[in-house]
Amino acid sequence: MRRLRLAMAQINTTVGDFEGNMARILKAMAEARSLGVDIITFPEMAVCGYPPEDLLFKSKFVDENMKSLEAVIEASSGLTAVVGFVDAKEKLYNAAAIISDGRLIGVYHKIYLPNYGVFDENRYFKAGKETPIYIIAGIGVGVSICEDIWFEDGPATAQAYAGAEVIINISASPYHYGKWQSRQQMLASRASEDIAIVAYNNLVGGQDELVFDGNSMVFDEKGGLLARGRQFAEDMVVVDLDVESVFNSRTHDSRWCQRSLLPEKKPWRLTRVVVSEEPSKGAGPPLPPEESFQQPDRFAEVYDALVLGTHDYILKNGFKKAVVGLSGGIDSSLVAAIAVDALGASNVVGVVMPSRYSSPGSSRDAELLAKNLGIVFLTIPIEPPFAAYLDVLGEAFVGTKVDVAEENIQARIRGNLLMALSNKFGWLVLTTGNKSEMAIGYTTLYGDMAGGFAVIKDVFKTNVYKLAKHRNAVAGFELVPATVIEKAPSAELKLGQKDADTLPPYELLDHILAAYVEEDRGVEQITAMGYDEAVVRKVARMVDSSEYKRRQAPPGVKITPKAFGRDRRLPISNVFKG
Amino acid sequence: MRRLRLAMAQINTTVGDFEGNMARILKAMAEARSLGVDIITFPEMAVCGYPPEDLLFKSKFVDENMKSLEAVIEASSGLTAVVGFVDAKEKLYNAAAIISDGRLIGVYHKIYLPNYGVFDENRYFKAGKETPIYIIAGIGVGVSICEDIWFEDGPATAQAYAGAEVIINISASPYHYGKWQSRQQMLASRASEDIAIVAYNNLVGGQDELVFDGNSMVFDEKGGLLARGRQFAEDMVVVDLDVESVFNSRTHDSRWCQRSLLPEKKPWRLTRVVVSEEPSKGAGPPLPPEESFQQPDRFAEVYDALVLGTHDYILKNGFKKAVVGLSGGIDSSLVAAIAVDALGASNVVGVVMPSRYSSPGSSRDAELLAKNLGIVFLTIPIEPPFAAYLDVLGEAFVGTKVDVAEENIQARIRGNLLMALSNKFGWLVLTTGNKSEMAIGYTTLYGDMAGGFAVIKDVFKTNVYKLAKHRNAVAGFELVPATVIEKAPSAELKLGQKDADTLPPYELLDHILAAYVEEDRGVEQITAMGYDEAVVRKVARMVDSSEYKRRQAPPGVKITPKAFGRDRRLPISNVFKG
Repeated sequence: MRRLRLAMAQINTTVGDFEGNMARILKAMAEARSLGVDIITFPEMAVCGYPPEDLLFKSKFVDENMKSLEAVIEASSGLTAVVGFVDAKEKLYNAAAIISDGRLIGVYHKIYLPNYGVFDENRYFKAGKETPIYIIAGIGVGVSICEDIWFEDGPATAQAYAGAEVIINISASPYHYGKWQSRQQMLASRASEDIAIVAYNNLVGGQDELVFDGNSMVFDEKGGLLARGRQFAEDMVVVDLDVESVFNSRTHDSRWCQRSLLPEKKPWRLTRVVVSEEPSKGAGPPLPPEESFQQPDRFAEVYDALVLGTHDYILKNGFKKAVVGLSGGIDSSLVAAIAVDALGASNVVGVVMPSRYSSPGSSRDAELLAKNLGIVFLTIPIEPPFAAYLDVLGEAFVGTKVDVAEENIQARIRGNLLMALSNKFGWLVLTTGNKSEMAIGYTTLYGDMAGGFAVIKDVFKTNVYKLAKHRNAVAGFELVPATVIEKAPSAELKLGQKDADTLPPYELLDHILAAYVEEDRGVEQITAMGYDEAVVRKVARMVDSSEYKRRQAPPGVKITPKAFGRDRRLPISNVFKG
Repeated sequence: MRRLRLAMAQINTTVGDFEGNMARILKAMAEARSLGVDIITFPEMAVCGYPPEDLLFKSKFVDENMKSLEAVIEASSGLTAVVGFVDAKEKLYNAAAIISDGRLIGVYHKIYLPNYGVFDENRYFKAGKETPIYIIAGIGVGVSICEDIWFEDGPATAQAYAGAEVIINISASPYHYGKWQSRQQMLASRASEDIAIVAYNNLVGGQDELVFDGNSMVFDEKGGLLARGRQFAEDMVVVDLDVESVFNSRTHDSRWCQRSLLPEKKPWRLTRVVVSEEPSKGAGPPLPPEESFQQPDRFAEVYDALVLGTHDYILKNGFKKAVVGLSGGIDSSLVAAIAVDALGASNVVGVVMPSRYSSPGSSRDAELLAKNLGIVFLTIPIEPPFAAYLDVLGEAFVGTKVDVAEENIQARIRGNLLMALSNKFGWLVLTTGNKSEMAIGYTTLYGDMAGGFAVIKDVFKTNVYKLAKHRNAVAGFELVPATVIEKAPSAELKLGQKDADTLPPYELLDHILAAYVEEDRGVEQITAMGYDEAVVRKVARMVDSSEYKRRQAPPGVKITPKAFGRDRRLPISNVFKG
């Protein structure tokens, strides 16, 4: 029986950490060797981390990446491996090295370069023009990279038709909620249509605004899921591939002969490289049974993405501890909970900063939350500096009415206090603004927006509640106090202020925002969906006029198909009304 | 004699301002008509403004752009015009409409889409595949867009070889110092090599971080400059083109026959459209003599770029007045002078915010500058809020040493005060950090970095001095006081602090920064240029570790080939040491 033992190393790389990434690669190779694996795969650009962005313009970065690859090749005795790296030829290529037993067998160059959403690959890379098939242990294996496999009748299909029975795709596919389902659906179709085993090795880990969710998958030639890597955690997926079955399925598929022709001209050509004709020993140690896969609840999934993104941002940037301003509201409560799950309670500090407008309940709720989370908390009143500001501004402000200027001073005092603690003790400040607020500018620049990482900037307010309830359900008690969840949202920057005084209800607001921001619908189109035109227009104007604030916001975890940041690039100077 | 009267409308468009842009287009068309012009041209995307970025994903934006074009077509009686717009077909194209006497004659689609530096055109557009020649008044005219003309043997050359005697290129080419010279050189070569008149119509005006510098140019077929549009200002360049001379030059060029063959296969095909065979009336009113062109001094040019960029950012974003914190140092003095030149003295407010560490000279210098500029200035001491911060932080800071935390509190108080004035009175805050400081992070996030526009963020410190001296020379007196220029740079955030205590001299620093930031050289390469390795390494590390600050910085005018911003996209989470 023709078979292959395949390992997919779902590792968490760091951009520019050649040493650390190599250590992960070599460790996985050693483990694979001990398991009698025939071929091991690694994610896209495993050697240098993804996405390296303009580091690619630094020749030393590219050189170190080539040197790392050399070291991986040298360490590959007794194994075949597929390793993502940057290939420096006359131009740069997003590449996969196929290495075997200490030799570089071949290099695949990514053909379809994504240049949409968060991606700018045309900025850096030239597109590949060859779809090679490697004969490994006598079996035809096609290799491609990420985007390449998303095209029907693309490189993977061409490889299958030309004899590849196993299709390997190494990937760095960023998370948004539900994306793994569309990946799974696409990969299952690719496998069943191409009658090939499809092994999809995704990256895992946080990198600035992106979280790579892992979820590597292997499908049999009927599109059945054989194995899956963990979500949001490193993993090594080892699976025995029954290639005999691919042959049988193809033989019994009446349309296979006709389908194995490609009448259209494609921008690539097929090549064929023999690595080894000797069949797999096929007798590695028995593999443990796969854990059964529990489809996660959407909010559990998003919560875990936020935890991983926060953890990796803080640690990859050399911080250990984080500080959060606790207002007693739902946003800061959720952020504190995520921080504790990411870093441990001993690495999170809460700061309560009451003002003359804070309700007594707010400080009480904040304290209760801190106690529930087991974190240290400080109380620093903002009244003395606030009074001092009003005093020194007295002359300049003479004859003016109290307005948003005085509100923002308070938010900015809090920002300044948190940054002072950050500067003094090396804690990273986590900001607490949600996507609804970021969208309409219901935040204070340099105030509550001040900090290193904006944990929930891509989470709409209505979902903030759902995530808090999810976390409480996991805890089995009211970790986020019920009073926090039940109170009316308020910035508490003036007397008796409530969000609802100036904003539509969040249930309504979030629907309008999703249509305007994430789907690029115009006011007329959204009104036609059944919303009040005046409300839609007001919301759209608030979004448009807050672009300058978002441009100065810290990064945060992308969890939706369109997050603020690299995903949505709008001019600040712009008079268009959508 | 075969001739054409050509007008190039060098207009200042605003992104999304369909009404305003159209008004400019129609006004220029009316003027051209009165001057007996045969053909008038407008910049790239004149209808919608450039660059529209992700507004292109909004269908209403694209629709309004198409409607504007319709209106321009209707208004084109008696004229032929080339107008930049976005063409909505199955995909979007960066396009030029060729319209004549109320009809759309044809549409050219940009072939070479820039996707480097600040450009992301592959994100939005499909590349064109045709290089049309239009017969206008019996004369062959080739039309292309911006990047297309930068390629030797590109679309313009193909059009020339196929009979075009006049090559029109509509453009939106952003400024950096010296760029117009390289444009001029390239265009002169294109004209003389293709033996064709080349008319290059550039955009003018500021758009977020970009300034388009105008400098539209017309060359005869020998590469001689016939006319030039103003730099940094709207203009209408009208010139009589002697096409007869092109014919004669080609006839007398012994290599023209051989050269008019294109052996290689190109990714486009030539087309030919007759607009009018009737010769130009050729008898518009006589044109005034061209003003003689004075090559500007480099610092005069950069200064003007900063003024236009600041003016347009403020006005296009709906502000009228600006406020600047005046420290008595060179950076804030220069920014205030630029603001006055951009907005007028009555629209600029200076704020002096002395602290316990301010030298008496600083306030005096700031006051003198404000008087020289004729601007209102306020004095707001920061001591009372500073004392209040230290007081409320006393418990948290117990047992710690005074360090950068206390320094930053002061800078952030100033930021908070300026933002309070902004919120109260609607003044836009201009920040004063220069490129040297932005590079190494010698700035306080939410402190001196707080504001709407960072006027000199792309100007190295050594050049800040040169710009101040230039401005003084124009003024004819010490507008920026000599004491400001002569004093040793200091942030004055602790007693006796001088930049030179912790930083290399700026003359040295700026050279290292230019190599590391603008040229992407590594530490080893820069050391090999003759600099001390320890200094280079320290500077490189400071640059690397300040990426998170730059990500939260306000936009500012790009004046170098590589500015911070869209031009330089580095990850924050990154452990690579260059």
